[in-house]
Amino acid sequence: MKKILVAITAGERERARFQSIAEACGADCEITYTTAEEATEQQIAEAGLIIGNVPPKSIRASENLDVLQLFSAGADPYIVPGILSEKTALCNATGAYGQAVSEHAFALTMMLIKKLHLYRSSQVRSQWQDHGMVTSLADATVLVVGLGDIGLSYARLVKAMGATVIGVKRRGGECPENVDELVLTEEIDRVLPKADVVMSVLPNTKETAYFYTAERFARMKDSAVFINCGRGNAVSGEVLLEALRTGQIAAAAIDVAETEPLPPDSPLWQEEKLVITPHVAGNFHLASIYEGVMEIAARNIEHWLKGEPPENVVDMKTGYKR
Amino acid sequence: MKKILVAITAGERERARFQSIAEACGADCEITYTTAEEATEQQIAEAGLIIGNVPPKSIRASENLDVLQLFSAGADPYIVPGILSEKTALCNATGAYGQAVSEHAFALTMMLIKKLHLYRSSQVRSQWQDHGMVTSLADATVLVVGLGDIGLSYARLVKAMGATVIGVKRRGGECPENVDELVLTEEIDRVLPKADVVMSVLPNTKETAYFYTAERFARMKDSAVFINCGRGNAVSGEVLLEALRTGQIAAAAIDVAETEPLPPDSPLWQEEKLVITPHVAGNFHLASIYEGVMEIAARNIEHWLKGEPPENVVDMKTGYKR
Repeated sequence: MKKILVAITAGERERARFQSIAEACGADCEITYTTAEEATEQQIAEAGLIIGNVPPKSIRASENLDVLQLFSAGADPYIVPGILSEKTALCNATGAYGQAVSEHAFALTMMLIKKLHLYRSSQVRSQWQDHGMVTSLADATVLVVGLGDIGLSYARLVKAMGATVIGVKRRGGECPENVDELVLTEEIDRVLPKADVVMSVLPNTKETAYFYTAERFARMKDSAVFINCGRGNAVSGEVLLEALRTGQIAAAAIDVAETEPLPPDSPLWQEEKLVITPHVAGNFHLASIYEGVMEIAARNIEHWLKGEPPENVVDMKTGYKR
Repeated sequence: MKKILVAITAGERERARFQSIAEACGADCEITYTTAEEATEQQIAEAGLIIGNVPPKSIRASENLDVLQLFSAGADPYIVPGILSEKTALCNATGAYGQAVSEHAFALTMMLIKKLHLYRSSQVRSQWQDHGMVTSLADATVLVVGLGDIGLSYARLVKAMGATVIGVKRRGGECPENVDELVLTEEIDRVLPKADVVMSVLPNTKETAYFYTAERFARMKDSAVFINCGRGNAVSGEVLLEALRTGQIAAAAIDVAETEPLPPDSPLWQEEKLVITPHVAGNFHLASIYEGVMEIAARNIEHWLKGEPPENVVDMKTGYKR
């Protein structure tokens, strides 16, 4: 008996789809529906395939678990040694978040370059106040740091506005569509001074922790805007605040913070040049995310039942999709 | 002696260009540089061509004035009877504002549909607060009301994001690029219920005053967002506030107001669902505007010196470019 544990809210449509996949595969299969919070230790221990971000510690390196399909793009709590058995394939939901997160990052970009954050602050004070000249993406150079699904979607959006796009990536390769120049992560210092916009979607790995140092902000144009829609620990709040206060960059927006929720007494909240959104770029806030996650889940159920290797497998060393 | 009065700040480059045009035309011509505020009555009375928005009353229907080249797109103060002689061709700067105003309206659109105005308000209160689901232009229907230079540029931007575009126009004709469906202004009530975004760039004419009535807001989706980057009198502040407070629409953004500056005690300022920018979408806030205005001015100087009819002539009845 193959046991599938669906630990994420599944609607009627998704349940019917999973059932019909199981039937089409002719598998002796039991599908149990629960949530990540309510999944029991026994359910987790017995499952051959789990869909959903169950608490890492509850998995106890189960030898029964062939596939753990996360609903998130980030997989970092699950690559810690001892969480998963070596036989378990860890799969993320890369692909489901591209549209939502790239559009959120793009909206933040437009907001910053048109100074709408300053106008909103003036509005709160009932002030009809002019904040001066603005710029356009039509003659901007945009650095996209992290060229996965989200970064590539974002590149397409800014390219459509006329921007020149420099993509920054761990590994080389062919220059993707909508990217004008491809640069390796270790060469970023060379291109930082060119950028009018630096948009970062670095995942949380050892190499990317505190990637944006004071030295790197110092290399940016004082007119540049910085956007972080990846992970909070790519930049320390103190370093970012200092870069804004000393005018090393013009403005910034973050959807992620080192500590989430950002504490109410953090000095970041009241920095007028900084826009903060509470980790909502993804997080199922656009309908397409849920649909995308369920699509990946359905495909990996089918692969597993057919004895095929799963898709979207995460490299346990890097935390990235292989 | 042909007299040109340049009543707008002109840099070295523009002055040299105007001079070389005059020389190339072999014209006996005097170019005087001043500003709209500092132009004397005598300078205005003697000029055959004026570039700049000199005070309407100071023109006194001068019979010497062949061409009045405005730096604005709107021409309404100058079409009032008695301001210009019948022999004067009134020219606007339509074409110079398309990029700047459309990008500002587009940035406001992205801000509203991604709820960044609500997140900015939460930020001011140091609150890590989730404002729920957002939408995407990728599956949105966008109504562009006013299909001049600005409206068409805006249509291109939202189309690049995947939107379905309905263009609303005074007169029929062929459906322009980036517009999926063309509708006459008098038929707007039929398409208002379809729109996820209503973006208005109506100029200030008799027909467009208070165009967006309470009845029209009632026809819109309660999830719709409304953006006005045209003229302030297209919608009364009271009607807009009521539409927002009663939930007839989800959010709105205005770059223009009935009275400008908007008085500090206006209730509009503190409406969280409304974004206000202080008439900065155009107003020389993007470098391309000045360049565009000077380009039109240079062409009309040349036309005038050569005895050719000018470009960008405004219809004195409608206030639109003919």
